[in-house]
Amino acid sequence: MITIIAATNRPGSSTLKVATHYQQMMEKAGEKTQLFSLEKLPADIAFNEVFGKRSVAFQDILNEYIVHSQKFVFVVPEYNGSFPGILKTFLDAVHPDLLRGKKAALLGVSSGRAGNLRGMEHLTGILNYLGLFVHPNRLPVSSVLTLMDEKGNITDANTIKVLEKHVGDVIGW
Amino acid sequence: MITIIAATNRPGSSTLKVATHYQQMMEKAGEKTQLFSLEKLPADIAFNEVFGKRSVAFQDILNEYIVHSQKFVFVVPEYNGSFPGILKTFLDAVHPDLLRGKKAALLGVSSGRAGNLRGMEHLTGILNYLGLFVHPNRLPVSSVLTLMDEKGNITDANTIKVLEKHVGDVIGW
Amino acid sequence: MITIIAATNRPGSSTLKVATHYQQMMEKAGEKTQLFSLEKLPADIAFNEVFGKRSVAFQDILNEYIVHSQKFVFVVPEYNGSFPGILKTFLDAVHPDLLRGKKAALLGVSSGRAGNLRGMEHLTGILNYLGLFVHPNRLPVSSVLTLMDEKGNITDANTIKVLEKHVGDVIGW
Amino acid sequence: MITIIAATNRPGSSTLKVATHYQQMMEKAGEKTQLFSLEKLPADIAFNEVFGKRSVAFQDILNEYIVHSQKFVFVVPEYNGSFPGILKTFLDAVHPDLLRGKKAALLGVSSGRAGNLRGMEHLTGILNYLGLFVHPNRLPVSSVLTLMDEKGNITDANTIKVLEKHVGDVIGW
Repeated sequence: MITIIAATNRPGSSTLKVATHYQQMMEKAGEKTQLFSLEKLPADIAFNEVFGKRSVAFQDILNEYIVHSQKFVFVVPEYNGSFPGILKTFLDAVHPDLLRGKKAALLGVSSGRAGNLRGMEHLTGILNYLGLFVHPNRLPVSSVLTLMDEKGNITDANTIKVLEKHVGDVIGW
Repeated sequence: MITIIAATNRPGSSTLKVATHYQQMMEKAGEKTQLFSLEKLPADIAFNEVFGKRSVAFQDILNEYIVHSQKFVFVVPEYNGSFPGILKTFLDAVHPDLLRGKKAALLGVSSGRAGNLRGMEHLTGILNYLGLFVHPNRLPVSSVLTLMDEKGNITDANTIKVLEKHVGDVIGW
Repeated sequence: MITIIAATNRPGSSTLKVATHYQQMMEKAGEKTQLFSLEKLPADIAFNEVFGKRSVAFQDILNEYIVHSQKFVFVVPEYNGSFPGILKTFLDAVHPDLLRGKKAALLGVSSGRAGNLRGMEHLTGILNYLGLFVHPNRLPVSSVLTLMDEKGNITDANTIKVLEKHVGDVIGW
Repeated sequence: MITIIAATNRPGSSTLKVATHYQQMMEKAGEKTQLFSLEKLPADIAFNEVFGKRSVAFQDILNEYIVHSQKFVFVVPEYNGSFPGILKTFLDAVHPDLLRGKKAALLGVSSGRAGNLRGMEHLTGILNYLGLFVHPNRLPVSSVLTLMDEKGNITDANTIKVLEKHVGDVIGW
């Protein structure tokens, strides 16, 4: 079971569209997946899940999306030259024992040109610190709004090609 | 007016103690300062201040601590190999127009040996992206718990010396 | 006197063309500048200038381009996801006393899309460590080959605009 | 066959001592290894091996230490807040086809407190770019001079323990 994490809580995000498309590609390739959007996090997570407290709602999220998955795909938008604060808060809230030794692959998403390369660099450092193996194919998806039709399906041929390569890399890892 | 930001919302943090001590040193050096602890942020900031919404409470924080300050000192603990998620969420929520062209100095705090060097590296990238000038004296304060007495006053002579150097650097900048 | 550093030793590099164009823009704005290309470094610099040895040739370079400049502009290509090794070797060879407290501005150059954002991030950390102030306008110049005519003049209107902004930022700093 | 790379060309380096000690631990654990010190690189590598040229001497190095190894351990000192320039020059000179899909583990070495955490962070980004998998156990060895006897044997009990963990992690990977 691979968990795909749409790493923002922005309503109606392009990130969630890319993550959904990615999930469909993985399912088509025969892989069992689930999608977790950070929109589902408790709104007060930074205050009530990080310092030793734990709500039932958040424990349920951990049980469903983190505990039993050995592989994660983080689909990560670029906010202010890095990844969203909510993603680090989420990682600060998960107990490291639930992550250590597992595998993570990254996809960067940006409306501009850089595909969140810096955010993926920062995130790799943090995931390594937490004991996760990070796949070197850290795929930047730039100018994301030009790659999709109005329903959010990725239609750009080259993007589909590199996504298919990424899907194959992650499944074969 | 220099705003010192204690960059965690953890209750009773060492970071707040270091920030308070740092503020006293600045005041003793004749500088006007104010201290903002991220504990005072709205608990749901990640959901209700980042994507175009704005509460009165958060607008008040911006007015008091950000709008009129030209210089900031971020006192930043190390969480999971970087800085706390709540700090990036705070930066994601502040409108960049309130930060561009201003100055920031950094102090890293850790209970371990590295004094949050990686977190300060990530943070520098983000602050530069937001248009802030970052002072190169990014001071790591390691093994912070061994440097204080039980009241949270820093008693270690070498730490006091490098903090005084930092205070002087920031005031003279 | 501003020293512009073309941060590669590759013969006939696009980086040198961008640096030359940038120098012309600075001169046109009335600023006194000099250009140093890492092509002029001693070929054995990594072995004979880093560990306490110092050749006359390299000392002459330091005297001419480093000692008397208070401001540097690094024009930095992307090699393998970061800046060229020769640039770090150069910085390892310069005595830090010649750099501390000075100012540096960065321009990234890449044939691909990211304009060496990661290399500029790494370089900022190193320059800060060496005590240099780094300007937050770290300008990525992507797809550089499509921006020039066959003589190496930058002809792309938007690139000229952001370069002019950068030139103004550095002169006014 | 695991290749251990002592990632500096400094004569008589602590890094080489740590690398030699590490190699002995690996051999004791039954692993076949070889040690490559960057001291053996051609002195003019930055000028004569990076841009399409290739000497017999350097090709021999590649054949002996890179081509047939699937796993590398980089023992990396901290120079100026990152890793030595010569290491990046070496990576710039190796053709990426010789590295892609292979595995790398990192050890940071510093005389100060941070064990080259920043250098390992930068290096991870570059190795990932080159298509190498990087082990998340990036071990910082700080205050290295206090950990050794006069012959360069590591005598500090805690350091031996974390090195043994690292050796085990790399062999079992």
